[in-house]
Amino acid sequence: MDDDILKRFGLTIKRLRERKGISQEKLGEISDLHRTYIGMIERAERNITLKNIEKLAKALGTDISKVFEELESTNSNKQ
Amino acid sequence: MDDDILKRFGLTIKRLRERKGISQEKLGEISDLHRTYIGMIERAERNITLKNIEKLAKALGTDISKVFEELESTNSNKQ
Repeated sequence: MDDDILKRFGLTIKRLRERKGISQEKLGEISDLHRTYIGMIERAERNITLKNIEKLAKALGTDISKVFEELESTNSNKQ
Repeated sequence: MDDDILKRFGLTIKRLRERKGISQEKLGEISDLHRTYIGMIERAERNITLKNIEKLAKALGTDISKVFEELESTNSNKQ
């Protein structure tokens, strides 16, 4: 599916956010992105850019490579 | 610097492309992205989206996480 990568990315961000125990609003504050934008990313409604991927990774306290390692370790069909 | 991540990404794509011994035009063909767009990405002139990051990683025969591992293993000041 064309948007598969966006869906897997959204689910990965949601999982990492929940693992940190923070809300979309809090992640928005830390990353300097709007809380509604965080929601759109988690629901795969936006094709996120590299600069914002970096902001999210930093706000989650991790590296971009680690975010994608987590994404790639999941089977998209099982999400 | 604000665009640091784009510069590091562009240099990483260039390095991976040259390691494969292919031209920007060839990478464009394989990834279904325009050759001039490949050039703009390598020169950090575009804030690339996740869908296109996926296309480039696939065309380079690697995972997105591996692209960013390579990026993170380099010191941006030495580029």
